[in-house]
Amino acid sequence: MPYVLYYSPGAASMAVHWMLIELGVAFEAHLVDIDSGKQREPDYLRLNPSGRVPTLVVDGVPRHESAALLMLLAERHPEAGFAPAPGSAERAEWLETMIFLANTVLPAMRDWFYADVDGEAAGADAVRALADRRLAQAWDRLDAQLADKPGYLIGGQLGTVDFMALMLMRWTRNQPRPATGWPHLAGYIHRLRALPSFIELNAREGLTEWLNPND
Amino acid sequence: MPYVLYYSPGAASMAVHWMLIELGVAFEAHLVDIDSGKQREPDYLRLNPSGRVPTLVVDGVPRHESAALLMLLAERHPEAGFAPAPGSAERAEWLETMIFLANTVLPAMRDWFYADVDGEAAGADAVRALADRRLAQAWDRLDAQLADKPGYLIGGQLGTVDFMALMLMRWTRNQPRPATGWPHLAGYIHRLRALPSFIELNAREGLTEWLNPND
Repeated sequence: MPYVLYYSPGAASMAVHWMLIELGVAFEAHLVDIDSGKQREPDYLRLNPSGRVPTLVVDGVPRHESAALLMLLAERHPEAGFAPAPGSAERAEWLETMIFLANTVLPAMRDWFYADVDGEAAGADAVRALADRRLAQAWDRLDAQLADKPGYLIGGQLGTVDFMALMLMRWTRNQPRPATGWPHLAGYIHRLRALPSFIELNAREGLTEWLNPND
Repeated sequence: MPYVLYYSPGAASMAVHWMLIELGVAFEAHLVDIDSGKQREPDYLRLNPSGRVPTLVVDGVPRHESAALLMLLAERHPEAGFAPAPGSAERAEWLETMIFLANTVLPAMRDWFYADVDGEAAGADAVRALADRRLAQAWDRLDAQLADKPGYLIGGQLGTVDFMALMLMRWTRNQPRPATGWPHLAGYIHRLRALPSFIELNAREGLTEWLNPND
């Protein structure tokens, strides 16, 4: 049974969409038009009660949370090597970094973009100020990690951490402090954006911003 | 080589400490006295540059992030059954719930308790108001999940999700809306607090609040 991905261009589904393309597995992709509110319609809420993307239907069951889906796909397709194998030296670092992206960077992004939707409009500036500070700290940390080991974030090869990290870095493009302002992140972003799968992903989602020049 | 846990009573290390006790494996426990600022001293910062607990030394290497450590321990000790096995029907739900606790509940707790440490004091009330709203939504969701399937959160048996969830619910005890105010959470909390390992955990950490009467 092929995977079925419900996605919105450039949204939190992008990392999962990218990984499916990299895996080369059979999947159907269904656009959820967030601008017209499709994620709030009953048909979609049956698949995803929180009204967010992504939803990935796995063996007929709708599943959620981008970080969890990346980890699940890595486990179902170990031959791709997108996560260090259980018991390997890099496994703990991989788990720690996936959780860091999920519990620190992603929530700060949620705060930045949805402070006035999730909370009171009057408090949104304060929430966004804290998000901006936390994101800068997170980019400092990842920049230092890449200074020591340029290339990919974990284990010297492309994997789930990179799919997630690049998606999150892309979201900074119109923020006051875009990730491209950190030197080692800038190099990392440039290398990953050159991957054929990333270019293909952008084409399929209809995205033209935040690509390398001449891609 | 035994595990070495650096913990502070009742802090984010509590879930990992509990799991180690439940596993019955050899480990050393070192108290990090947060009240006297030990987590900011050079010796501890070498183990954990963010100055937080827990740190768990695994095969001689310091590792971090409570959710990641629980997942790592589950993988290293599969015989305990504290996570559904890879490929099992409950595996995706387990991953999704671990990530939900890590990316939604834990960050809201961070906001609630550290809004004025992480950000500007002037914005702390706004940050905390949003945290309170998000926590209530999270408890609604977990309460509904337990209404359908009372007992444990995943797969009908005790596991990493429960260690994490109970620790987080404990943190609500002095909040305006404690988790014990949700009917199915109240029953879940009562059942889990009766476990000998939880009573032992509290004794070892010197905690006397938030135990069942007569325990």
